[in-house]
Amino acid sequence: MKVGIVGATGEVGRAMIKVLEDFQIPVKELRLFASKRSVGKILIFNNTPIEVELLTEQSMKETFDFLLFSAGSTISKTFAPIAAKHGNTVIDNSSAFRMDENIPLVVPEINGYLLKNYKGIIANPNCSTIQMVLSLYKIHKEFGIDEIFVSTYQAVSGAGHKAIAEMEKQYSGKNEIAIFTKRISHNVIPLIGKLRDDGFSEEEIKMINETRKILEDSSINVYPTTVRVPVYYGHSESIVVKTKKSFRTIENIKKLIQESTNVVYSEEIITPIDVAGSDYVFISRLRKIDEKRFAFWNVADNIRVGAATNAVKILMKLAGII
Amino acid sequence: MKVGIVGATGEVGRAMIKVLEDFQIPVKELRLFASKRSVGKILIFNNTPIEVELLTEQSMKETFDFLLFSAGSTISKTFAPIAAKHGNTVIDNSSAFRMDENIPLVVPEINGYLLKNYKGIIANPNCSTIQMVLSLYKIHKEFGIDEIFVSTYQAVSGAGHKAIAEMEKQYSGKNEIAIFTKRISHNVIPLIGKLRDDGFSEEEIKMINETRKILEDSSINVYPTTVRVPVYYGHSESIVVKTKKSFRTIENIKKLIQESTNVVYSEEIITPIDVAGSDYVFISRLRKIDEKRFAFWNVADNIRVGAATNAVKILMKLAGII
Repeated sequence: MKVGIVGATGEVGRAMIKVLEDFQIPVKELRLFASKRSVGKILIFNNTPIEVELLTEQSMKETFDFLLFSAGSTISKTFAPIAAKHGNTVIDNSSAFRMDENIPLVVPEINGYLLKNYKGIIANPNCSTIQMVLSLYKIHKEFGIDEIFVSTYQAVSGAGHKAIAEMEKQYSGKNEIAIFTKRISHNVIPLIGKLRDDGFSEEEIKMINETRKILEDSSINVYPTTVRVPVYYGHSESIVVKTKKSFRTIENIKKLIQESTNVVYSEEIITPIDVAGSDYVFISRLRKIDEKRFAFWNVADNIRVGAATNAVKILMKLAGII
Repeated sequence: MKVGIVGATGEVGRAMIKVLEDFQIPVKELRLFASKRSVGKILIFNNTPIEVELLTEQSMKETFDFLLFSAGSTISKTFAPIAAKHGNTVIDNSSAFRMDENIPLVVPEINGYLLKNYKGIIANPNCSTIQMVLSLYKIHKEFGIDEIFVSTYQAVSGAGHKAIAEMEKQYSGKNEIAIFTKRISHNVIPLIGKLRDDGFSEEEIKMINETRKILEDSSINVYPTTVRVPVYYGHSESIVVKTKKSFRTIENIKKLIQESTNVVYSEEIITPIDVAGSDYVFISRLRKIDEKRFAFWNVADNIRVGAATNAVKILMKLAGII
């Protein structure tokens, strides 16, 4: 299998290399692409050093089995269509194509069937959305979801490794602010992405639209507030769900969560530091409000579950490995 | 005016001294009480050193104009009734008496009328509740609140200065865990107070019950998730409200917030580090979902607005200063 990673030196790009190794994907040739700044860097894949190449139009015209993109929307908009036009399958982690009605937005455990005989660009959903829908899709199927109230506690790694470096500098006493709009050390910032005229942030709109597209139900009402917290890895979500049908007892919800693929139900409280490096979504603090409402706490590694692992699972599904 | 502070060396006790100074309360004699461990410590009030005394039954039998308690429920349950029995007015920051139907639970801006001609024990509400009801009471009066979905981002100072010390040790590399159940540095913990059998935490139950008692409406549904974050001072709350009557435009909500006493409406995003030391509740990210639902971000200094300042305002109301 010949695989290329575009944006290979970023937080998600590096995690993609690691996940390809961890899942023992039979990659014969791995090519790593990045911007000028990173050309010549050496990254290790299966104990083999690989030199990072410059991303060019020409390189995207070569034949690959799979190209994994994670270099932001602008790069994806420019280079993914070139790669696709030349017969390549692109799994794109940016928001560039997610809401394009001709592009599947895939969480393999939920709507992997969309990948059957598909060629071209596939969109990898937003990190906060992936971990939420993974825990809710069986519940939606059984009881129908009417409303989702979600407040997020999102790790700094979601903004890239420059953001991590900024947080670390702040903790070591340097009050430098560049990536975030305010200090993130010993603070929380209730804005991810740009603020829109309607008062919602871009991240919140992603959660609304992508949840509906992945669960294939535009009647689901999602009410998100997305917040950055000074955590390295692991997004947390405080979620209250209102179902259409009565679920009667919380045991019925618990059972559906336990039956969900790659979701772990826990009676013990799970925090972000507990999940870093894991490929599972962890649910704790599940509780009943009434027969149509329940609340829970949802934690997952944002770089793996929320990006790299989902992208590699799409690759595996397309390749017939899963 | 003769005032006593019980639990004077704690986070809230020290803030009470500071607020008495800041608000220029005409205190002629200030007595500071604490446990054995803190006896002999010197605290400064209006440039005068005051030695901390041992809290005893005998000391509570003296005559005070006001006694401010902030030494936990057990101390309050033991000593506040003795003080009250001897004619003293006690303003108690613990949860000991808050849900006692004979005890007023007061946020002066909202239900200060309860203090008229009152003598005995007055309960100071929970920090997370105070800042939430301060921003919502006018909206409740105008449109009626049906549902409040709230997820909190609560500062470590809410757990006392031992908790602050624990967080600081963790940030300096010592992985000592004693106050919190997990590491709080670079982490968030979705549990405040004990976990109950019904899956709710004690802090969440306080928010439900106290909101109803203060707003004098048991039909209000509060759905809280309370979470500790590695912030020194300043609780944040992500809140979605559903009203009974249509508010039509978000301008109508904004106007009511702007008219609320000690609440500041901001178009700019406000974070905990912006509010430390302030006596106001700050509202930002206000946005309309539909004509009966809106969302906002609510931040206030948990030690001042959420405890010391509210207690001193109760004193001021009782003393006829406000």
